[in-house]
Amino acid sequence: MGGAGRAGGYPAKQISMQLSIIKIGGNIIDDEAKLAGFLDSFAATPGKKILVHGGGKLATRVAEALGIKQQLVDGRRITDAETLKVVTMVYAGTVNKNIVANLQARGCDAIGLTGADGNSILAHKRTHPAIDYGWVGDVDSVDAAFLTGLLTLDKTLVFAPITHDGQGHLLNTNADTIAQELARGLGRSFDVSLVYSFEKSGVLMDADDDNSVLSRIGPAEYQDLKAKQVIFAGMIPKLDNAFAALRSGVRRVIIGRAEELPLLLAGKAGTTIVNE
Amino acid sequence: MGGAGRAGGYPAKQISMQLSIIKIGGNIIDDEAKLAGFLDSFAATPGKKILVHGGGKLATRVAEALGIKQQLVDGRRITDAETLKVVTMVYAGTVNKNIVANLQARGCDAIGLTGADGNSILAHKRTHPAIDYGWVGDVDSVDAAFLTGLLTLDKTLVFAPITHDGQGHLLNTNADTIAQELARGLGRSFDVSLVYSFEKSGVLMDADDDNSVLSRIGPAEYQDLKAKQVIFAGMIPKLDNAFAALRSGVRRVIIGRAEELPLLLAGKAGTTIVNE
Repeated sequence: MGGAGRAGGYPAKQISMQLSIIKIGGNIIDDEAKLAGFLDSFAATPGKKILVHGGGKLATRVAEALGIKQQLVDGRRITDAETLKVVTMVYAGTVNKNIVANLQARGCDAIGLTGADGNSILAHKRTHPAIDYGWVGDVDSVDAAFLTGLLTLDKTLVFAPITHDGQGHLLNTNADTIAQELARGLGRSFDVSLVYSFEKSGVLMDADDDNSVLSRIGPAEYQDLKAKQVIFAGMIPKLDNAFAALRSGVRRVIIGRAEELPLLLAGKAGTTIVNE
Repeated sequence: MGGAGRAGGYPAKQISMQLSIIKIGGNIIDDEAKLAGFLDSFAATPGKKILVHGGGKLATRVAEALGIKQQLVDGRRITDAETLKVVTMVYAGTVNKNIVANLQARGCDAIGLTGADGNSILAHKRTHPAIDYGWVGDVDSVDAAFLTGLLTLDKTLVFAPITHDGQGHLLNTNADTIAQELARGLGRSFDVSLVYSFEKSGVLMDADDDNSVLSRIGPAEYQDLKAKQVIFAGMIPKLDNAFAALRSGVRRVIIGRAEELPLLLAGKAGTTIVNE
């Protein structure tokens, strides 16, 4: 039984349900018109889906208004206790609940979550030999059974970039990491497409030309382009994460502009990262 | 078949699963030690349960720090657009997520919700012939099927006093009302005990003596004590709501101190309101 290419037969591997996990960054959240356009596309995306949002500049504005000084070490924001209060307010309160209400208005039955909710993402406070990052979380585990339960109730999940340590502490957690960990955790039960949206159209052959998008990249080509310094700087950790996600069971990873979501998911825009 | 009083037989009416719905007010939320003690008791409460929390003074402090003036009309806070942003931050962000994380630390698998999440509580913006209350919601419906689904996944629900109108607007909504509407909506499937905690030990025969708690009150006694002005002022709407809840299918309503939660649920403290 089984075997590839049989007309009319059952596929050799059981076809899993499709799940799209889409991460949007601050550049979309800070722009009301862009966000509305993105939510239109997201709500219209068929099948099971998860949105992971970053924070945007509102947290910085609220912190400034409350007189809380932002600490930076090596260009990284330190999450002291006061900053944690602000990001919890803004990310889990303002941003998350407004996205949920706006998806509901578009007929998309969304539920907003942090990692504390339903113990969905357990993390630990980051330890570093030299730098105290404060209340920053590195993810330990995702409760795939619970999240599958919510998806089975036909809910769309909207994650704020906040996790918890199981000891009563909330933790500020990188939204890219949350998207990747959700994709890994759910990749066993679903056929996961993971979309990282950012400010460019995809992986560019010429960093100054937004039309030079590489439509597809595999590990060999990545190594080659990295050696030739066509791919450099901030794109390297993004692609390393993408290949790591593919190795852990995610079907495909796409990098591109949030404004082009339907085209990204159709493979007609952005860069699709493949493991072959 | 069936019939009451048969030894060893099936009960005539199917016994529903117990559900405790407990509303805590700002006096608990504002006091860290009181809140921790309450969460100990709440986490230890057996069976299915829902916590509904109010706001507390943090919203007022944050609004002041952000330079947002509170508008009061007839002693009622008006929720203008800026105030809605603050209550969304504080109630759905800070207060809700800290309660959830602290329940998780106590082994209670909680999930925080507003009415927008999963479209669980749909409301409409209050209309009033004389006063514009702003972004204040009056509840239209509760999605009992979804909430039952979450309870069946063994989650404890923690509601912030925020609903939505299905048109993309969040609405500031009275926490007592949310507790009552949840109790009504879930009263068809569960044997619901609804606990309103407040700053007194229960319904008092002498308003100045906290030891004069009436342990049980029915409709006839209520009318009698109201006529004699033993029950007056703020207690009247509380009891009217309690009797309304009983008429709509809630099994029992208890009023008392949050600090005495186990005794309240055991009928050994507070006032139990009954419909007979």
